[in-house]
Amino acid sequence: MTQPVRPSVAIYPGSFDPITRGHEDIVRRTLIFCDRVIVAVGHRATQAKQGLFTIDERVELIKAVFEDEDRVDVAAFSGLLVDFARERNVGLIVRGLRAVSDFEYEFQMALMNRDLHPGIETLFLAPDARYSYLSASLVREITSLGGDMSHFVSPVVQRKLLSKLQST
Amino acid sequence: MTQPVRPSVAIYPGSFDPITRGHEDIVRRTLIFCDRVIVAVGHRATQAKQGLFTIDERVELIKAVFEDEDRVDVAAFSGLLVDFARERNVGLIVRGLRAVSDFEYEFQMALMNRDLHPGIETLFLAPDARYSYLSASLVREITSLGGDMSHFVSPVVQRKLLSKLQST
Amino acid sequence: MTQPVRPSVAIYPGSFDPITRGHEDIVRRTLIFCDRVIVAVGHRATQAKQGLFTIDERVELIKAVFEDEDRVDVAAFSGLLVDFARERNVGLIVRGLRAVSDFEYEFQMALMNRDLHPGIETLFLAPDARYSYLSASLVREITSLGGDMSHFVSPVVQRKLLSKLQST
Amino acid sequence: MTQPVRPSVAIYPGSFDPITRGHEDIVRRTLIFCDRVIVAVGHRATQAKQGLFTIDERVELIKAVFEDEDRVDVAAFSGLLVDFARERNVGLIVRGLRAVSDFEYEFQMALMNRDLHPGIETLFLAPDARYSYLSASLVREITSLGGDMSHFVSPVVQRKLLSKLQST
Amino acid sequence: MTQPVRPSVAIYPGSFDPITRGHEDIVRRTLIFCDRVIVAVGHRATQAKQGLFTIDERVELIKAVFEDEDRVDVAAFSGLLVDFARERNVGLIVRGLRAVSDFEYEFQMALMNRDLHPGIETLFLAPDARYSYLSASLVREITSLGGDMSHFVSPVVQRKLLSKLQST
Amino acid sequence: MTQPVRPSVAIYPGSFDPITRGHEDIVRRTLIFCDRVIVAVGHRATQAKQGLFTIDERVELIKAVFEDEDRVDVAAFSGLLVDFARERNVGLIVRGLRAVSDFEYEFQMALMNRDLHPGIETLFLAPDARYSYLSASLVREITSLGGDMSHFVSPVVQRKLLSKLQST
Repeated sequence: MTQPVRPSVAIYPGSFDPITRGHEDIVRRTLIFCDRVIVAVGHRATQAKQGLFTIDERVELIKAVFEDEDRVDVAAFSGLLVDFARERNVGLIVRGLRAVSDFEYEFQMALMNRDLHPGIETLFLAPDARYSYLSASLVREITSLGGDMSHFVSPVVQRKLLSKLQST
Repeated sequence: MTQPVRPSVAIYPGSFDPITRGHEDIVRRTLIFCDRVIVAVGHRATQAKQGLFTIDERVELIKAVFEDEDRVDVAAFSGLLVDFARERNVGLIVRGLRAVSDFEYEFQMALMNRDLHPGIETLFLAPDARYSYLSASLVREITSLGGDMSHFVSPVVQRKLLSKLQST
Repeated sequence: MTQPVRPSVAIYPGSFDPITRGHEDIVRRTLIFCDRVIVAVGHRATQAKQGLFTIDERVELIKAVFEDEDRVDVAAFSGLLVDFARERNVGLIVRGLRAVSDFEYEFQMALMNRDLHPGIETLFLAPDARYSYLSASLVREITSLGGDMSHFVSPVVQRKLLSKLQST
Repeated sequence: MTQPVRPSVAIYPGSFDPITRGHEDIVRRTLIFCDRVIVAVGHRATQAKQGLFTIDERVELIKAVFEDEDRVDVAAFSGLLVDFARERNVGLIVRGLRAVSDFEYEFQMALMNRDLHPGIETLFLAPDARYSYLSASLVREITSLGGDMSHFVSPVVQRKLLSKLQST
Repeated sequence: MTQPVRPSVAIYPGSFDPITRGHEDIVRRTLIFCDRVIVAVGHRATQAKQGLFTIDERVELIKAVFEDEDRVDVAAFSGLLVDFARERNVGLIVRGLRAVSDFEYEFQMALMNRDLHPGIETLFLAPDARYSYLSASLVREITSLGGDMSHFVSPVVQRKLLSKLQST
Repeated sequence: MTQPVRPSVAIYPGSFDPITRGHEDIVRRTLIFCDRVIVAVGHRATQAKQGLFTIDERVELIKAVFEDEDRVDVAAFSGLLVDFARERNVGLIVRGLRAVSDFEYEFQMALMNRDLHPGIETLFLAPDARYSYLSASLVREITSLGGDMSHFVSPVVQRKLLSKLQST
């Protein structure tokens, strides 16, 4: 019996407030073994804290970062990640792991998602070592204090960060 | 531009002394997103400690466990994993992660392998929670002390374990 | 000299917002070696965030879950856990440990409580592996997003969760 | 219905090569909530490396340390810990946890032992913070290099350590 | 060629809300290898949550604790730590590490600070084991619940804590 | 009262079998805040396993790597590190930390060394992120399997490694 050859798609979920070079690295590594990646910006209608960027702004920034890569789609979702995956008919989730604290939280979520929908599998990737100490919250905090994050975000993201923080 | 659709293959390397249900679980989960898995038994010619099973025995046990699954190949390799992967023209390695100690060792190896051969990517999977406390060394130790490991290895592996340990 | 044989009692403190099957598992395991368990719902008068359930609702849910087990008492406490234990004349505290992050926080508390009142000892238990990735906050979040938590909470808790979240 | 009041016993297993003040601390804390403790020195007939002290010497040292405490028994066992516990009709195992690496190994063993014999429960205790960085292997190594371990082992253990290491 | 001998200075940054004996321990250990320590209370103008003590109160408490030690300076800073260090012409930052969770966060910050300003190096120290489970947040919480923190803070800090919490 | 200004010296102990670029990085960072570094190769007369390089070879390799840096001394020591430090009249030890497993072992040693000799303080540094997954054992293993470690060791070390491994 031959295995049907089909295009493979993965969802890369997160807050992306904003997308960093660490996130970009995970997307590009996923494209090594997947045909398409859906970068999925999660949000909750009821969430008190808004974040720095609106969901629409985050989606626009990710689109701008990957404007030359037609194998990347960007979408926002509310509700359960596994429901979003089912809706899109995608069985693969990818997540980057940097540290032990990531590892524990991510495994908790992966095992819970598997329980909620057994057909969906989560794959973990190691980002480039240069980004092992990078997080979106650090990018927001350091930029707000006047630090230069140009090593850690794309130019389009840095411009938006600076204009956003000046207007705050 | 359309992305060429190709069959995807992953290497699942390890010692497999012997293969456990935790290993089997990782193989079956990999087959959700890959078309084939090569289970690769690593060994070193110069290694002092031999292990419980010879490399040939380990390969035979894995073949026996997956005899009904024609998408699984089994091979032994010595030398660097990345050289074996290159030889087989495979760009994906999969590894299971159970605990924080696994995580750190596995990430060290993944980052080093990436440095040795940048085209090869390592993916990490969570085994079923039932196998989160299982290891081949625990299987060997508990069986040798008379404990029942039938929840944790396939029947063919358990038979071999018992006959091996009786003859020791 | 003979050791006086006395009934043994343990306090199992927590937020229980709401009680999960992981919590229930720890209570039942404690009853293997203790004669009684006091499930103690901690709260702070000054606390800004209220949680999903009120303290009274949490106590009622725990009572409902253990209505057939007369060795379980349920109580609310504010103030220091060690003061509550002293008041009840109980020298044992039990806590479940799931992950490394739990471990560090729990040990910090156990050592601090020992400093505050040296006669009180904290015992840690491992929950069933099925519940190793379960937490009350995950139960709240996933239920609010429409996910099914019936594997992870008792039916009485699930009913209350659903009615509470519909009215929000 | 009243709960039958019975004397409670716990097994404290380990290598105890030799017993340290950290081990003593765990024994004394266990006696707060148990009527008796069986300190159980595990060994394997087939084990290549012998350790510093023989099994008989380790048992004698533990007996000497607790000679004024008639609630402590000392025994050697080979084979599975759960078989030893069953034989002694004891349902409780206690273990000290110092660090994250302990935690992971100990939980793996506790969950495996629960699988091998569901009626046996493992309790974890935190040693005194003064002993959080103490291990028997460190005691052996530092004493062999001429360091003073009198803060960390009982006088009888220190005398035996010094005479043992001089004769090596 | 002889190396110019110069006085060495380190910055010890933190929130210090309030300073604990664990913080004091790190300052005194730093004075073993540095000629001066600047205890630097970080704050953010835009920060919603105020903490228990104002920045001025925290600075005053640290000054009171070290009033007999003329090698300790105290300062408040807002903005990036590396900018504060550069301004003061100091190339050394010291931080205490207690637990694995500290370790990961602190390394993330140290590596990020090194990226922001390569000439600044962060050194980590282990506090005394007695303070390994101590944190300023625990001091605030336990004092507010009526617990005695006199082992863990200086008398001047304890007095201020009690009067502050009575007035709340 | 003025603080006497004195040249500061640190000991950097390890096995260095062989010295890697990660070790070199720690030495160079230490020279930012110390006037001299003594790289101290620890060994035990009674040790069964010899390592790849002899103690003399390891010392020679470190000297070769730092031949242009007259602020680095190299020495071998057996016995306790704190005795070696006392002999050399040095009160500072430096160690690199890469991962959580390092952290726990290193803290255990630092706290034990502090107990053995309270005047000696251990400082921990983060290596460059590029070396966060590097270890001497990985260098030995990968070189022996034919992998290229030229990113991770100095040229003089790589030449010696290759000739050593060819002659094995």
